[in-house]
Amino acid sequence: MRAEQIAEDFPVVRSDMEAIDAVRMIAQHRLPGLVITDVSERPMQILPASQVVRLLVPGYVQDDPALAGVVSELTADRICERLSGKSVAEVLPKPSRPIASVNADDTILEVAAVMAREHSPLVAVVAGDRLLGVITASRLLEVALGNR
Amino acid sequence: MRAEQIAEDFPVVRSDMEAIDAVRMIAQHRLPGLVITDVSERPMQILPASQVVRLLVPGYVQDDPALAGVVSELTADRICERLSGKSVAEVLPKPSRPIASVNADDTILEVAAVMAREHSPLVAVVAGDRLLGVITASRLLEVALGNR
Repeated sequence: MRAEQIAEDFPVVRSDMEAIDAVRMIAQHRLPGLVITDVSERPMQILPASQVVRLLVPGYVQDDPALAGVVSELTADRICERLSGKSVAEVLPKPSRPIASVNADDTILEVAAVMAREHSPLVAVVAGDRLLGVITASRLLEVALGNR
Repeated sequence: MRAEQIAEDFPVVRSDMEAIDAVRMIAQHRLPGLVITDVSERPMQILPASQVVRLLVPGYVQDDPALAGVVSELTADRICERLSGKSVAEVLPKPSRPIASVNADDTILEVAAVMAREHSPLVAVVAGDRLLGVITASRLLEVALGNR
């Protein structure tokens, strides 16, 4: 069994998409994270859902979470205000590591090793620069346990 | 809006459960992670799905992922062999930090701050020692964006 065989289609976020639409996408589809590509649709970065949430948290609250209790609430209005008119590229944190990716012919164990090492809820399956699909952690477990 | 109001029921894993059943649970329900409790059902630890995957990867492959390509594949048989007869408590890594949890009356922004800081795909909503429910990152985004 090879990575390409178990990869699934997955909604992809281009870096020039509106940031607010990318956040909506994760909420609507209950995704474990986002795969972000550049404008040529080359996979660039995987942002776990918790780090999409981070985009909504003001910097001073990130620095001191105790402040979260005493400042105003996280509302749809505030989120829109915070992200309005900004592209994904404009709000994205600088990636600290290369994207968690595997090759089409990598084994399930190789996929598992990358996922575990990168603490990533999903990995991109690539052929050169091209995204073939995505493997989520739960998909990998499903396949490894024999429920394909 | 308070944490308790948006918390959802979530399958919980007791530390004396068979490890293989906990792994099956994440695959079957496509969970973003596991909430692990002690035998008195007090929440102890949250294990993101990527770190459940790690339980299946032999130590020498974790140390050197390049070995994953040259050793045998991750199969259902091997997973069962690896975990067979072991409880969740026996295979669980030592938690490096306290469990990502919030109080029942914490605000959505406080939940978001904890989730972002802990890089956790879900947080436990607790009242003292008792688990009231769980908030996943996608649930939090859904509520914050106003689709309740």
